[in-house]
Amino acid sequence: MESKVKDLIALITDHGESNISERKPATLYAPRNYMMGLGGKKLRSLLCLLGYELYRSDVESALDLAYAIELFHNFTLVHDDIMDAATTRRGQEAVHIKYDVNSAILTGDVMLIEVYDRLARFDPSPPLLMQRFTQIAREVCEGQSLDMQFETDDAVSIQQYLHMIELKTAVLIGFSLEAGAWLAGAPEKDRQHLYQFGVNAGIAFQLQDDFLDLYGDSDAVGKKVGGDILQGKKTYLYLRAAELLEEPDLVSFLALYKSRDPEKVSKVKRIFDDLYISHYCGEAKRSFFDLAISHMAAVKADEQKKKFLVEFSRGLFERDK
Amino acid sequence: MESKVKDLIALITDHGESNISERKPATLYAPRNYMMGLGGKKLRSLLCLLGYELYRSDVESALDLAYAIELFHNFTLVHDDIMDAATTRRGQEAVHIKYDVNSAILTGDVMLIEVYDRLARFDPSPPLLMQRFTQIAREVCEGQSLDMQFETDDAVSIQQYLHMIELKTAVLIGFSLEAGAWLAGAPEKDRQHLYQFGVNAGIAFQLQDDFLDLYGDSDAVGKKVGGDILQGKKTYLYLRAAELLEEPDLVSFLALYKSRDPEKVSKVKRIFDDLYISHYCGEAKRSFFDLAISHMAAVKADEQKKKFLVEFSRGLFERDK
Repeated sequence: MESKVKDLIALITDHGESNISERKPATLYAPRNYMMGLGGKKLRSLLCLLGYELYRSDVESALDLAYAIELFHNFTLVHDDIMDAATTRRGQEAVHIKYDVNSAILTGDVMLIEVYDRLARFDPSPPLLMQRFTQIAREVCEGQSLDMQFETDDAVSIQQYLHMIELKTAVLIGFSLEAGAWLAGAPEKDRQHLYQFGVNAGIAFQLQDDFLDLYGDSDAVGKKVGGDILQGKKTYLYLRAAELLEEPDLVSFLALYKSRDPEKVSKVKRIFDDLYISHYCGEAKRSFFDLAISHMAAVKADEQKKKFLVEFSRGLFERDK
Repeated sequence: MESKVKDLIALITDHGESNISERKPATLYAPRNYMMGLGGKKLRSLLCLLGYELYRSDVESALDLAYAIELFHNFTLVHDDIMDAATTRRGQEAVHIKYDVNSAILTGDVMLIEVYDRLARFDPSPPLLMQRFTQIAREVCEGQSLDMQFETDDAVSIQQYLHMIELKTAVLIGFSLEAGAWLAGAPEKDRQHLYQFGVNAGIAFQLQDDFLDLYGDSDAVGKKVGGDILQGKKTYLYLRAAELLEEPDLVSFLALYKSRDPEKVSKVKRIFDDLYISHYCGEAKRSFFDLAISHMAAVKADEQKKKFLVEFSRGLFERDK
């Protein structure tokens, strides 16, 4: 598995290097090239190639489409980092720090335009690809809007949270697979199942993120344990605890979570542990991943390749970093 | 002329009211609806309808396309107002003031996605429309990037300035006419000439803006006389003066233009007057408008309708506000 993924990543990286923009002015395109050169997991590109490969073997033909999707993902990160006041991205300066906020806004805009430019090149039926992409792109914005709204909203339910992460993260994961399959000429039913596989695996993936923030190996994760708790972020762990607790414990938990108590992380962790939150989180992850697998089962493609995709995804979702 | 324009504006306004977005979340779409409801001249919509009307009389059929172009223009304003730290727009609060910067960034993004969503609906050859629009949209971003860059660049030439306003403003004016004509089935040559008519008239229009800031009737213009001078903005007037002046007058002029001298506007105006800058500006305007007219002459459409478009544009460019 590893060597196949490695080979695909090498293809993606080479292709990326041949797609550096040389348009002018440099003030507009240098931040775009900087962002695209920061590396990252290239997960969406990989999934697009793997979706294509379920039906055809000339995987190089899907590189342009994979790149367009990766470009869209990076556009969202450029703008999200401004909105979230995040200073670093992939261990380096975020675009709005390396350059400035105005450059990051405008460069993001031109990246989004470039995405459409690239998508419009696909034959034979760009309208279908465009329409699907546009629907997904809107949903990603809607997810980011909900995420920002939830920061100041004290009454977020788990259902609302799952809906938010579906929009913000999972739909693009699903689309990456779907688009690759579309390019390879997959039938509509298969495309729908692949999309659903990606969406549900994407939600599981995000829940794992929430879990690892507190329960992960801090060296492997590469960030401080309990960062979400320190920031008072409304994660799945937090929302589930708030749902399980009753007065007056609920009130003191909510107060603690908002506080700057120096022992906040260990105190919150104790509450989570008492409530078996990691168990609930694991259950939720598994149920989304099981749903994903059931969609993959319905896809009419080579069983070995399908299995590879499932195992690759499971690896992501069972990762400890 | 006035009543025809009034009728078209009424159509555009009605159509706009039936296109309020009802998507959720409201935090994302309310700023979009606010911006689209602020009014404005609807110049790009008008030009799209007039471009269509050169070839077909069922002008209502072009309203959706006109709306998509207006939406794109408004997207650029939402983001530009953040970048320029402009607090008002059309006499009311700019979106990033009325809501906040994050909402304005994200709402702008979703407006751009909506533009593509709308453009993708056009048959029979969306790729052509898409490709042309995408080219224009990139150029508008490039123009804004150059505009920001020029703020801190002391060596901007008139040629560079004209290139910047062409990209930032004029290409979308040209595209509005071209797109209307495209929808009506106009031949390619005509579309190209209409685009060039719009681009050159658009540059004349922008030069008139620069002129009116100092030489306009302040009541009619509705803003302080010499606002560009007070801000030290590099307008055509400034650049032409800097080109004509020689040492040591040049050095003192540049210093004055950057200064906070309380009599800055009147002092700069005296220098402009001594150099006959308003004459040069008028000449430049006319030469761009003449070029525009020569392109219109080559368009193979009803002469009366062409004349209407020329006179309508002349009215914009000879406006005193």
